[in-house]
Amino acid sequence: MLMTDLIVKKRDGGELSHEEINFMIDGYTQGQIPDYQMSAMCMAILLRGMTDRETLDMTMAMVHSGETLDLSPIQGVKGDKHSTGGVGDKTSLVLCPMVAACGLKVAKMSGRGLGHTGGTIDKLESFPGFTTGISEETFFKNVNKIGIAIAGQTADLVPADKKLYALRDVTGTVPSIPLIVSSIMSKKLASGADVIVLDVKCGSGAFMKTEQDARTLAQGLTRIGRLAGRKCAAVITDMDQPLGWAVGNALEVKEAISVLKGEKGGDLLELCLTLGSCMLTEAGLAGSIEEARAKLEKTISDGTALEKLSQMVTAQQGDGRDVYDTSRLPLAPVQMEVPALEGGYVRRIEAEQVGLVSMHLGGGRATKDSEIDLSVGLVLHKKVGDSVEAGESLATIHASSQEKAAEAAELLRACYSLSPDPVQRSPFIKDIIR
Amino acid sequence: MLMTDLIVKKRDGGELSHEEINFMIDGYTQGQIPDYQMSAMCMAILLRGMTDRETLDMTMAMVHSGETLDLSPIQGVKGDKHSTGGVGDKTSLVLCPMVAACGLKVAKMSGRGLGHTGGTIDKLESFPGFTTGISEETFFKNVNKIGIAIAGQTADLVPADKKLYALRDVTGTVPSIPLIVSSIMSKKLASGADVIVLDVKCGSGAFMKTEQDARTLAQGLTRIGRLAGRKCAAVITDMDQPLGWAVGNALEVKEAISVLKGEKGGDLLELCLTLGSCMLTEAGLAGSIEEARAKLEKTISDGTALEKLSQMVTAQQGDGRDVYDTSRLPLAPVQMEVPALEGGYVRRIEAEQVGLVSMHLGGGRATKDSEIDLSVGLVLHKKVGDSVEAGESLATIHASSQEKAAEAAELLRACYSLSPDPVQRSPFIKDIIR
Repeated sequence: MLMTDLIVKKRDGGELSHEEINFMIDGYTQGQIPDYQMSAMCMAILLRGMTDRETLDMTMAMVHSGETLDLSPIQGVKGDKHSTGGVGDKTSLVLCPMVAACGLKVAKMSGRGLGHTGGTIDKLESFPGFTTGISEETFFKNVNKIGIAIAGQTADLVPADKKLYALRDVTGTVPSIPLIVSSIMSKKLASGADVIVLDVKCGSGAFMKTEQDARTLAQGLTRIGRLAGRKCAAVITDMDQPLGWAVGNALEVKEAISVLKGEKGGDLLELCLTLGSCMLTEAGLAGSIEEARAKLEKTISDGTALEKLSQMVTAQQGDGRDVYDTSRLPLAPVQMEVPALEGGYVRRIEAEQVGLVSMHLGGGRATKDSEIDLSVGLVLHKKVGDSVEAGESLATIHASSQEKAAEAAELLRACYSLSPDPVQRSPFIKDIIR
Repeated sequence: MLMTDLIVKKRDGGELSHEEINFMIDGYTQGQIPDYQMSAMCMAILLRGMTDRETLDMTMAMVHSGETLDLSPIQGVKGDKHSTGGVGDKTSLVLCPMVAACGLKVAKMSGRGLGHTGGTIDKLESFPGFTTGISEETFFKNVNKIGIAIAGQTADLVPADKKLYALRDVTGTVPSIPLIVSSIMSKKLASGADVIVLDVKCGSGAFMKTEQDARTLAQGLTRIGRLAGRKCAAVITDMDQPLGWAVGNALEVKEAISVLKGEKGGDLLELCLTLGSCMLTEAGLAGSIEEARAKLEKTISDGTALEKLSQMVTAQQGDGRDVYDTSRLPLAPVQMEVPALEGGYVRRIEAEQVGLVSMHLGGGRATKDSEIDLSVGLVLHKKVGDSVEAGESLATIHASSQEKAAEAAELLRACYSLSPDPVQRSPFIKDIIR
């Protein structure tokens, strides 16, 4: 079999066979197929598409390119969640304790990743002492005992995706539905959960610009997940502004705790209730979406979700009492308000730009070796649709110095677009694909 | 400027600017743009196309990637010819002396190339003593004096094409009209001729399978040539069998001499008359195609074309008398006939397969360092449309041993498809694009 022949076949709109896709992914992972052939193939796939059969074969070939997690030592139904990424996205911090409190098993392996803030692992390290460097034995024991554990990724999951994603990133071949689906689903399938819910963002700040594109992706993801034998659902959400209020590691943990305490609601809570009710119904832990939602709301009102987070922090060498008193979490030395220069209604908040402000403050990681400042970031006070008076604070900057804070305040103000007329926000949850 | 952005632009159907194309070709030639980005770009170009403006910019950027030949020391109009390649294609050996005898200046730099037989240079080396290793001074002096010279390529013409073609070859991105046009025309433009004629082959044995594809390519080539300020014409010819009778280096030289002597006609002569009349009219050396054709026919009947070849051989250290007595040219030790197993009419001769027979005999070059046996090859006796009786010879094999000859005879017989009914050959010259 020759890679050139496979490229020609796909270039001319043909369908690659099971054997051809395995040959391609194995050969590329092992370095026998060079980057320059794979990038031409990715462009051909992007422009010619793939059938579901091809996408499933590609996904499974990628799953088998490395190790897979065997979650069978865990009793009960295992759930996992994936988000296509967003600024201020602390969903896992809220959702995982909620569904764990309802009996779904959450056994999450996470990476640190690059971005405007750290990953879930970095955020959790805001709890003094907390570690994700736990043994496999402890990981399984904790999930069986308290229903939830988050470990740093040690297994070499889906090496094909690491290599392929780096290549796609520099060859203009990222936005292909079959390639995105195989990238996301190979990682989710290799992670071993029975139930997978996907949060697909759409809007100008998101990877999928239109609702239609987001729906196509969401349908692709759930279809392939089901073909691979898992329970799947997807939620399409609006990304015309950051999710929730806080952007920054410890600040997001504090916001998550507020939500789990029932002190805050808004889009973040709505998203967690929607994703969570999909998870519980798919897992058979609730008979209907309504029943699932009621169960989840109860985990907040009765404090069991927050207690679940507390148990996890304790089980992973932190102090569980910190979720009830966040004063021990990192706090930046400087707080600075960002007053509005004029009055009006918030029309847009450029999420991507807000992320760059967090990055500028030191809250994110530009390269693998960057150090993250867990304390810095920002907390928005005004979101889309809110009315603002001149001089009223749009947000609070948390910074390591007055100078950094002043720079960030300027940058953040520019993220806001105000309108003289009242602004109607479009629905946050666009659709649910089950 | 980032190559990734240019890939995305072309991927989405955009038009690359002059600056963007220069950036891309310069960066790729100099190794700043990696193969994996260029191959993704080539696939995007193949599937999205290029405007004439883009193709011209790409062609000129490639021309300027290396040295160009300045033919201004030569008085008169300089002509050049290119063929998209075919088995048994000894056109240059016949055409160049004919047009030179009519006053067109032929200053040809040629490579050796890989293929079923050697290139024009290898073929000419069948004349004992003949060399293409002549100085630039001698090259220009010869063209000015006798009107024709063929030198081995010493200048580093179009390095971008060498690199790009090697990449396209292994990434399924060869058959793109803009990429083929820029590859061919950049080399022709860099070679400095005023008049360029192109022989575009079509048919199952050719690169362009259909007449329509061949016409599209021919139109692209001539359009870009004219936009670059040269006189251009193209001839579309059928490739459902090898051109002429001989395949093999010395054997093709002998056939060319027969044609120049007026002893043989057929498709080879017809092609040379058609290409030559385009060259002469474009060069202003004839007022009409008819006048040009008459002039060219006269170079055969009065012996001036053969004499021109003789002069060139002498001027390049061979013995010009050899064109009048070919017994001094290499002759293989073994000749073997290939008798037909049954009677009928020749329906097809698989040109590609015939080429492989020549290769098998040692007449071609598989790698740059392969040695060529100039004496071996084959001479067809039956062409499409001819009637054949059982036992009649289809061809003569010229080989280095009985064993090689016998193997080749078997292979060659399999190249012939016979029909019980008479076969009408489709017109050889399909179209002329001027």
